[in-house]
Amino acid sequence: MIGGGQLARMTHQASIGLGLPLRIMVGSPTDSAALVSPHTHLGDPHTRADITGFAAGCEVVTVDHELVDLETLADLDRAGTAVRPSAAALTFATDKAHQRTELAAAGLPLPDHRITTERDATIAAADTLGWPVVVKTARGGYDGRGVWILDDRPALDAFLDDVGEPHPTLVVEELVPLECELAVLVARGPDGHQVTYPVVESVQVGGICRETIVPARVAPEVAAEATRVAAEVAAVVDAVGILAVELFWDGQRITVNEVATRPHNSGHWTIEGAVTSQFANHLRAVAGLPLGATDALAPAVVMANVLGHHDGRTPVDHLAGALSVPGASVHLYGKSPRPGRKLGHVTVLADSVDTARARARAAAAALGDPVPESP
Amino acid sequence: MIGGGQLARMTHQASIGLGLPLRIMVGSPTDSAALVSPHTHLGDPHTRADITGFAAGCEVVTVDHELVDLETLADLDRAGTAVRPSAAALTFATDKAHQRTELAAAGLPLPDHRITTERDATIAAADTLGWPVVVKTARGGYDGRGVWILDDRPALDAFLDDVGEPHPTLVVEELVPLECELAVLVARGPDGHQVTYPVVESVQVGGICRETIVPARVAPEVAAEATRVAAEVAAVVDAVGILAVELFWDGQRITVNEVATRPHNSGHWTIEGAVTSQFANHLRAVAGLPLGATDALAPAVVMANVLGHHDGRTPVDHLAGALSVPGASVHLYGKSPRPGRKLGHVTVLADSVDTARARARAAAAALGDPVPESP
Repeated sequence: MIGGGQLARMTHQASIGLGLPLRIMVGSPTDSAALVSPHTHLGDPHTRADITGFAAGCEVVTVDHELVDLETLADLDRAGTAVRPSAAALTFATDKAHQRTELAAAGLPLPDHRITTERDATIAAADTLGWPVVVKTARGGYDGRGVWILDDRPALDAFLDDVGEPHPTLVVEELVPLECELAVLVARGPDGHQVTYPVVESVQVGGICRETIVPARVAPEVAAEATRVAAEVAAVVDAVGILAVELFWDGQRITVNEVATRPHNSGHWTIEGAVTSQFANHLRAVAGLPLGATDALAPAVVMANVLGHHDGRTPVDHLAGALSVPGASVHLYGKSPRPGRKLGHVTVLADSVDTARARARAAAAALGDPVPESP
Repeated sequence: MIGGGQLARMTHQASIGLGLPLRIMVGSPTDSAALVSPHTHLGDPHTRADITGFAAGCEVVTVDHELVDLETLADLDRAGTAVRPSAAALTFATDKAHQRTELAAAGLPLPDHRITTERDATIAAADTLGWPVVVKTARGGYDGRGVWILDDRPALDAFLDDVGEPHPTLVVEELVPLECELAVLVARGPDGHQVTYPVVESVQVGGICRETIVPARVAPEVAAEATRVAAEVAAVVDAVGILAVELFWDGQRITVNEVATRPHNSGHWTIEGAVTSQFANHLRAVAGLPLGATDALAPAVVMANVLGHHDGRTPVDHLAGALSVPGASVHLYGKSPRPGRKLGHVTVLADSVDTARARARAAAAALGDPVPESP
């Protein structure tokens, strides 16, 4: 696995059960995964020699993030080391213009959008789509970065001045009037067999996921449509491993927001809350093993992220407060605290969303920034 | 944690979530836990210098097995490094004569027994208790080793000739006519607060646990009595961490069979099957953190051990067969295969014991020795 963040850390945890030897390429000995795995190698994911050196002797290579030199991955695959997901699949996550173009071509429901590469076209697109308008850089964004909501023409002008020349490739998009955000995880094997997790509701604040609510509080037919769309996206992307599809629900229509070709924050609840965790299923898919059942284990599961508190507290010093909350399962990532940084998460299973949510929030608030009130 | 077996391996897995830095003293770099943890130190658990060197800088010391130099542990504790469970508590597991004497003094129900230190007394005890008789060495036994069932006086004579002089301390005990074996796990904090897991049924073959069935198939009042006895044992032992109490049920009476002062095979089902796993609760207890809920997450949970197959197969090569069983969660320990050796386990949650059991057996049989049919 290339990348040593919390996703690699939790994948290592899952690999212990399966007895699969997992080697991890980390950027630093203090990376989240490096603190808990004995099989880490230092390397830079943009340096060809580091990747090929790391991959030597691996039967299959996967990633914990998409910011990897994809050309090297494609070459590795051609030279006989399986890369799962493939460089082509990873491009759906690294290039939003490519993703929009391919998903549109496959007839998948998307927000109305234009892809632009020059100033005049960008302004024309925004005028057509209406204000406020969403502008995303095709490359380099994640966790709300690389996405701007611009209220009017002067704001767009200022943004474009700021970006400067050459004009990057942008996705200019209608602002969908959200009822809620949904996410669907799909695990897909190299043979194309895929299984889908229950539809979850993702509570975002400032572009960052704060809570995942399972099941999503939408009508069964909305959940069914979300599942159908996500399954189709997985087939179009031709992903192997976990694919996370983030969706908008505006009360009328499901549209695709983002696609991640790896385990995802919206699937952390599966560690305790589902028969097979997303990390175990990612490993199973990537290793070509049978995929595991995705059913939830309780009527309600809520995951709350632990974000760095503004008082700079170290979450591990506040475990007692979190663990005194009934049913709270705590996951800390071993990262140094910084206000707003994702330092861990808490999952709670319960008979109702309200109970699970109150408990998850209480435990997360002991460890980090309190989760803001939201519907 | 002193000891690098599968219990340490699974405790490491639990420590990742809690973000607690766990250092493990292993006997070899190929020990089960050494394969998955970056924080291992080589050392011999019977060598004082190894233990004290390892413990330097630890806030609290615990064990994955009881075969540790207890004098050194007691000295460590006196010198200010918390040892949990204490050397005194560990003695309940390492010395069966001590355990029987102390539990009897506390009024706990035990099989009728005598503690003997010379030949004539042993023979007299057996004659009084009746044949067949159970003979256990006070020290050194585990997993059915150190326990003999002797049919008659000639068998006892042969046994005593074999043991030779000096006559070891023995526990001579009535053979309880079993309806089934039960086990109860208790997690106990340094403040004496304790929580109890659901009563499980332990299916033993040749003194080795093959399956754990949750809940135990006994009447509610029998389960309640088992829980009461286990909770009292935990208080008498004054354990900190997980305590496993193995019990006999003969259709009339619950009696105490064995006591283990650490996470235990009969609690492996808790990883997927309970709100808090025994490994997480062991760490929480030992670290003085609040204990987690012990409720089961499904109407039935069955764990089947993976024992080395006589064909010498390596379980990890047979994962595909095991993972094709619906709902099978596989845990492999990374140990080299040897017929009869515990190499892993499988857990299945289901709506009925029969379904869970059929699946757990099928998955375990793909990986190792088939579980024999039993009631």
